[in-house]
Amino acid sequence: MALPEFVKIVEVGPRDGLQNEKAPVTTAQKIDLIDRLSQTGLQSVEAAAFVSPKWVPQMADSADVMAGISRKPGVSYPVLTPNMKGLEGALAADAKEVAIFGAASESFSKRNINKSIAESLETFQPVAARALAENVRVRGYISCVLGCPYEGKVMPEAVAEVARALKAMGCYEISLGDTIGVGTPSEARKMVEAVAAHVPIEEVAVHFHDTYGQALANLYACLELGVAVADSSVAGLGGCPYAKGATGNVATEDVLYLLRGSGIETGVDFDAVMQAGRYISNILGRPPVSRVHRALMAKEAA
Amino acid sequence: MALPEFVKIVEVGPRDGLQNEKAPVTTAQKIDLIDRLSQTGLQSVEAAAFVSPKWVPQMADSADVMAGISRKPGVSYPVLTPNMKGLEGALAADAKEVAIFGAASESFSKRNINKSIAESLETFQPVAARALAENVRVRGYISCVLGCPYEGKVMPEAVAEVARALKAMGCYEISLGDTIGVGTPSEARKMVEAVAAHVPIEEVAVHFHDTYGQALANLYACLELGVAVADSSVAGLGGCPYAKGATGNVATEDVLYLLRGSGIETGVDFDAVMQAGRYISNILGRPPVSRVHRALMAKEAA
Repeated sequence: MALPEFVKIVEVGPRDGLQNEKAPVTTAQKIDLIDRLSQTGLQSVEAAAFVSPKWVPQMADSADVMAGISRKPGVSYPVLTPNMKGLEGALAADAKEVAIFGAASESFSKRNINKSIAESLETFQPVAARALAENVRVRGYISCVLGCPYEGKVMPEAVAEVARALKAMGCYEISLGDTIGVGTPSEARKMVEAVAAHVPIEEVAVHFHDTYGQALANLYACLELGVAVADSSVAGLGGCPYAKGATGNVATEDVLYLLRGSGIETGVDFDAVMQAGRYISNILGRPPVSRVHRALMAKEAA
Repeated sequence: MALPEFVKIVEVGPRDGLQNEKAPVTTAQKIDLIDRLSQTGLQSVEAAAFVSPKWVPQMADSADVMAGISRKPGVSYPVLTPNMKGLEGALAADAKEVAIFGAASESFSKRNINKSIAESLETFQPVAARALAENVRVRGYISCVLGCPYEGKVMPEAVAEVARALKAMGCYEISLGDTIGVGTPSEARKMVEAVAAHVPIEEVAVHFHDTYGQALANLYACLELGVAVADSSVAGLGGCPYAKGATGNVATEDVLYLLRGSGIETGVDFDAVMQAGRYISNILGRPPVSRVHRALMAKEAA
């Protein structure tokens, strides 16, 4: 199985990461982080979420963040838009890419957004249509693709069905999220294979959490299938809301290290990402969660 | 590439792990740990090292450890024997398996044991011959197979050459160690492929350190080549002497989790290994380094 020559990294730290961090981060600091990241060669930096500040207070300043960042040509700044109200906010903020999200688990969908999977897809349909009409591209997320905190195992076919629906709505890319980080490489591969029956592999992204330390192994197994887009979070920002103290998103540094060692191009400056990771870790007052980052810090100290 | 149906785990925590831990562990505690591990279904538990107590004080009680453990039929308890004096100690302790070790890096060999690679192999030749004559089986270790703290990159051919020599001495298994944990999956695969030109793949073991978080990805890539023996350390015991604060051996719990998720048999009771990991972690006064162990602890606490 040939590995892809180039992998696009979708940096999700400023949104998926910070949304799950407890320490307060100011709007100016978020803007600074996003601007630093967009100078590293990353092509996509998830910047904000137009969601209810009641439910996600960390993202309440999304309009200000979008207004404050220095948009670099060639870099996309996707924002989450769970509904039409969110999309209106995103459009007002001049977002050029939005993301909608469904779960592969009924229980998770019901408990997370109080809707069945089918109901959530119905909600997203007009959001996606309106975005596309405004010439805004739409990314689809699927959560719980390898396990659910309430149901346990999730069938690959359940993921494939949601992927098919998001693709039909016009999503240009479907990001498959192991939200609780429980999957293993063979399971990840089976799941991606099921999705690839409905979505071209070039439009598939993987989004691994490293809760059980399996994220890089899962990523490697999926690269072998031809997956060439990976979501990750600088410094491993973000925790796991379903297991306190557990780690969250796989760290961008760790993904870059694996890809570089495998001779895969990313166009990203590793050292610049490290510096961005150091910057936000200092703000949060804790060392980066990234294994590579910690090893290099230990080496520096030695 | 078909994954193996069964993988043998070689538990190295009581030796490779504890040798690199600073907190004192008593002889009785070592014996207890080894006995707990040998009750989990593990087929091989590295128990001791007959080395100079001047250089490795942590292993000074090796004879007492070997005398104290309850040997379970079907379980091997290999011990390290760097020279003829070590082998005499091992034979006196009634060891049935010994391990000899060479480096794939000249600088590492010189700085670690003050011998060139060729000189070290000359030293091991009579040790292996004598062991085999005593009906004691011999395992070969190679260190620095994916990188050296002094030289940086190590060529796959350098590893293959040492493997060939160890095989020629009668080693029944060659364990390929990424001593400083810097390798990535594609590099690991190339290295194993070079070794497999000289050693049947069934006689190849991989020994990954998780310093840069790549161990499980590396393991998975090697499983795909048919490697079916993996060294690991319960609770991730052991650090990295070349980068203070960095983690060491990949944790047995994390390896078992990956293998189980991939439908690969090991014959090992996961929960019993977790308990052994908890036992030694409590003695060391710190949480297990294992990612799976920590995630499950976080889940328990939630």
